[in-house]
Amino acid sequence: MTTQRLNRLVNLLQSNGLDALALNPGQTMTYLSGLNFHIMERPSVLIVSADGKCALVLAELEKIKLNSASIPLQGFTYSDNPATWSAAFQQAFEYLYLNDAKIGVEPTHLRVLELRFLEDAAPDANFVSAENVITELRIQKEPGEIALMRKAVEIAQDAFQATVPVIHPGVTEREIGSELNIQLLRHGSDAEFPFAPIVAGGPNSSNPHAALSDRKLIPGDLLVIDWGASYQGYMSDLTRTIAIGKIDPEFEKIAGIVLEANSVGRNASRPGIPTGQVDQAAREVISHAGYGPQFTHRVGHGIGMEGHEPPYIFGENQLLLKPGMCHTIEPGIYLAGRGGVRIEDDVVVTETGSESLSNLPRQLLFID
Amino acid sequence: MTTQRLNRLVNLLQSNGLDALALNPGQTMTYLSGLNFHIMERPSVLIVSADGKCALVLAELEKIKLNSASIPLQGFTYSDNPATWSAAFQQAFEYLYLNDAKIGVEPTHLRVLELRFLEDAAPDANFVSAENVITELRIQKEPGEIALMRKAVEIAQDAFQATVPVIHPGVTEREIGSELNIQLLRHGSDAEFPFAPIVAGGPNSSNPHAALSDRKLIPGDLLVIDWGASYQGYMSDLTRTIAIGKIDPEFEKIAGIVLEANSVGRNASRPGIPTGQVDQAAREVISHAGYGPQFTHRVGHGIGMEGHEPPYIFGENQLLLKPGMCHTIEPGIYLAGRGGVRIEDDVVVTETGSESLSNLPRQLLFID
Repeated sequence: MTTQRLNRLVNLLQSNGLDALALNPGQTMTYLSGLNFHIMERPSVLIVSADGKCALVLAELEKIKLNSASIPLQGFTYSDNPATWSAAFQQAFEYLYLNDAKIGVEPTHLRVLELRFLEDAAPDANFVSAENVITELRIQKEPGEIALMRKAVEIAQDAFQATVPVIHPGVTEREIGSELNIQLLRHGSDAEFPFAPIVAGGPNSSNPHAALSDRKLIPGDLLVIDWGASYQGYMSDLTRTIAIGKIDPEFEKIAGIVLEANSVGRNASRPGIPTGQVDQAAREVISHAGYGPQFTHRVGHGIGMEGHEPPYIFGENQLLLKPGMCHTIEPGIYLAGRGGVRIEDDVVVTETGSESLSNLPRQLLFID
Repeated sequence: MTTQRLNRLVNLLQSNGLDALALNPGQTMTYLSGLNFHIMERPSVLIVSADGKCALVLAELEKIKLNSASIPLQGFTYSDNPATWSAAFQQAFEYLYLNDAKIGVEPTHLRVLELRFLEDAAPDANFVSAENVITELRIQKEPGEIALMRKAVEIAQDAFQATVPVIHPGVTEREIGSELNIQLLRHGSDAEFPFAPIVAGGPNSSNPHAALSDRKLIPGDLLVIDWGASYQGYMSDLTRTIAIGKIDPEFEKIAGIVLEANSVGRNASRPGIPTGQVDQAAREVISHAGYGPQFTHRVGHGIGMEGHEPPYIFGENQLLLKPGMCHTIEPGIYLAGRGGVRIEDDVVVTETGSESLSNLPRQLLFID
């Protein structure tokens, strides 16, 4: 399977006029080679040339990983003394004959650390963004990948349901977040969560990216929980909103509007349309109800091996949706200083429309 | 406190001839400003000029974070449409007057994503490594930081002891790793662990950076467990080795040698000596016993807000140790394909020597 991926990459490099792709540890390296490295102070770089040769620069200490790569590659190792690192890059470039090449890099992953070693090893090369190549390589998920995402959604849903019993007035956001993390692990999530769960109660729920606090829940609060699991490197990302006791009637009203926007957004997603239409369809529900200014972010983002990846669901995005693309639908309304509602699902574009991978009830959950 | 840190940074920028420092989300940004961002596809960049002005480029969605910064800073925001992002960088540079400046960056953190936005906003600026400045800024821990590291060590030790009862022949590495992760959370670790625990049994223990497998423990195995907790952003990193049932006498022999090397390494660490001496002292114990070639990595690395940070403990390192520096001591002997032993502690350099933050028994733990 990964050899097929390597072949697709080689074709993409050639059709995009790139002589090579240089990757540091991350999802694209894993997607192509099956290799995982913890990203730290030592550079590990996989370089794939447009004729399909692969070189991996890595620490001597990690050499055993060469045996577990799923594609043929030549290793170039260095020791724990940083003075030896640049020689390994030099050797890799000599092996690949890439001196004055046009070399693609992954802007959201490659660090200045690796870039400078690459530039020093190939002073006449030109390092450009390969964002389009990498997007095209990974954006349409294979059936096996969708199965893993389905499992990541299932783990997240089960963990949420196992956490609900601890939610009561008097409990803090941090306590709920801790329990949710433990339940994610108990239900089989990888330890590297896609992101730290957001558990935002009362006024904090009006901040879409709130951090966990020690605020205790009180009756009348809205509580937004945004969480995800990872399973064999694939992510889920869900949001549900809970009402603590009796809430302001306007909170119930906005919950109904967001529920409708979520449904419209999920139904809008289908192959052949510009991604931006999905944003527009869901946003229109909220704007029409008079809450446009209180919906302060895009309708969603792609999801897969990364928690956020293409396709990004914002109004101006002209990218055409295709079967196998996976993305969130997460409209929200945030009443500043009072409370917010967000409802988020993960959907996969099918041949004829889209399917939600998540099916946890979407209505406000009332807890006394 | 963070204002003092900002003042120290300004002095360091001036004495190193830098006009500014540009930071993406990570430990240095948090250290300086108290701000945390999840690092994703949207660039968030803090720029500190050598005259002490601070600008933060961030998504409109995250604007509320400006209120929680612990230093005065000016925000420059952009929308969810990537076409708007570069304008925010332009505005920040106009505010800071940094057009043809020499600007430091953090090579192990700044990505090509942020670098290209910075380069576009200041085409005449020169972006250079500020590694030395950042190392000097953060390497000597304040008493408050050491207290947090002590807590991170305590959580890790307690989690380990709570995990030991599940370790038996027939249990897999993955099962032990899962339990250890849950116990880390139960004992108060932040959910973002410094790294995924290494639980390596039998032949896998001879690979210093093994990944969790489904191999079941059997009598005669060595089991290396390398794990850490994080607490309020500070890390611990420990390793202990366990013997399952009756083991090869050579395994007991190497465990004794590694124990001695660990002790010699901890005692060698003291202010005023080159860091490399610590590596040499511990390594000499292992080489003298005839296992030099089986000790394949440096003796340790610095630790603090990052799991790996300066000072790196390798023989050629001339950096002088100073009070407040924190680092691991982690000698090991790896008998390829058979088994390995590593014993790792976290130490802090004091005014007169060094102190181990960890005190879990270091001898082989025998489990039937």
